[in-house]
Amino acid sequence: MKKVPLLEIFGPTIQGEGMVIGQKTMFLRTGGCDYRCSWCDSAFTWDGSQKPDLMEAQEIVTQLEAKGGSLFSHVTISGGNPALHDGLGEVVRLLQEKGIQTAVETQGSFWKEWMTDIDEVTISPKPPSSGMQTNWEQLDTYIHRLKGRQKKQVSLKVVIFDETDLSYAAEVHERYPEVEMFLQTGNDEWSTAENQWLLTHLLNRYEWLVEQALHSERLNDVKVLPQLHTLLWGNKQGV
Amino acid sequence: MKKVPLLEIFGPTIQGEGMVIGQKTMFLRTGGCDYRCSWCDSAFTWDGSQKPDLMEAQEIVTQLEAKGGSLFSHVTISGGNPALHDGLGEVVRLLQEKGIQTAVETQGSFWKEWMTDIDEVTISPKPPSSGMQTNWEQLDTYIHRLKGRQKKQVSLKVVIFDETDLSYAAEVHERYPEVEMFLQTGNDEWSTAENQWLLTHLLNRYEWLVEQALHSERLNDVKVLPQLHTLLWGNKQGV
Repeated sequence: MKKVPLLEIFGPTIQGEGMVIGQKTMFLRTGGCDYRCSWCDSAFTWDGSQKPDLMEAQEIVTQLEAKGGSLFSHVTISGGNPALHDGLGEVVRLLQEKGIQTAVETQGSFWKEWMTDIDEVTISPKPPSSGMQTNWEQLDTYIHRLKGRQKKQVSLKVVIFDETDLSYAAEVHERYPEVEMFLQTGNDEWSTAENQWLLTHLLNRYEWLVEQALHSERLNDVKVLPQLHTLLWGNKQGV
Repeated sequence: MKKVPLLEIFGPTIQGEGMVIGQKTMFLRTGGCDYRCSWCDSAFTWDGSQKPDLMEAQEIVTQLEAKGGSLFSHVTISGGNPALHDGLGEVVRLLQEKGIQTAVETQGSFWKEWMTDIDEVTISPKPPSSGMQTNWEQLDTYIHRLKGRQKKQVSLKVVIFDETDLSYAAEVHERYPEVEMFLQTGNDEWSTAENQWLLTHLLNRYEWLVEQALHSERLNDVKVLPQLHTLLWGNKQGV
């Protein structure tokens, strides 16, 4: 039985971004990441500032039920990069046995077989502003393995900070035109507690991103979204 | 050739709500409605304050192309109630021939055969606060006809103003548990031009709706969303 390093179990709340935006869900946040994105808004998952608990699958499900009670039917697994952890396969299996849907987000740099059991997989390759490099052949394989599953979905999501990122997103979209494509406002102010200022700032960033997408022929079949939880609750952790 | 009464052709912009939230799209807004919702935010489609142009399908597509150029691959048909108009069938057919995706929103009170050709159908039955009555048998038939289409989707969306509406939404969700369900913040201030005030007001309304859904066992598998276009642009028409 492989244990999973967990940093947060919280909810029910809503998913604030991407393909299941607005979904009522519980969250699991795993520790550890193979990336070090310059603008990571969850750097506490890998910079050593917060210590994960090593937990077995049944213990994780028990804690989800203790916190969510009868008020959830959907669990989102985020990180860090959840695809680092074999033990999540058992968590997903236990949740499925209870009729609970699952979603995951990963950059697509590591493959795990349990990924194919997840109902909604968001793959978020990181644009140039992150400082990370995309391994395209690896991404090809990832998407190939997840496409065409019955009643399960896959999408791509790219966080955008500048025009170079936007051009990268267009490249991703052109490489996988049949995969649902999301552009997301980057939060370059992930440490401020000035919520009213942050709200105006992020809506301005979102409007900029919308305008950029509207004027790009390379980005016609895309969805452009903000992070709803940040508009509602600012940079607060655990909501 | 049946003509269609059109009030607005605009875009490209983004879809601000519901199942394809964030989607880059053009909008067609038809005139005329069989409902008179108390809080309708597009009452100009039926209260006589704006005059529609009667247009043939080819003319509509030509105008879409004149406005959108090469910057769109998706068209959203809204109203009023678009399902009043036979002529839209030809519009949808012409768009499909060009590889353009289509979405529609209707309350589900009138059926049209062209509805089955639409890629994303949003059915928005109206809650008690609207002053309208739901014909449940009619809604059953509507949803039955749209479910299970290959590569095409259907969803339900209920606008929520108060707890009675919330209970109505739960009833809808329990009647059609297998259909994707969206709860949307009602805009009770659809005439103000005070955008900063409206933004705070609508985010407060959205937070209230999120909290209500999070605490209801009847509303576990739902998505709770605001109207993004109103957060960005207030009550401005044609964006």
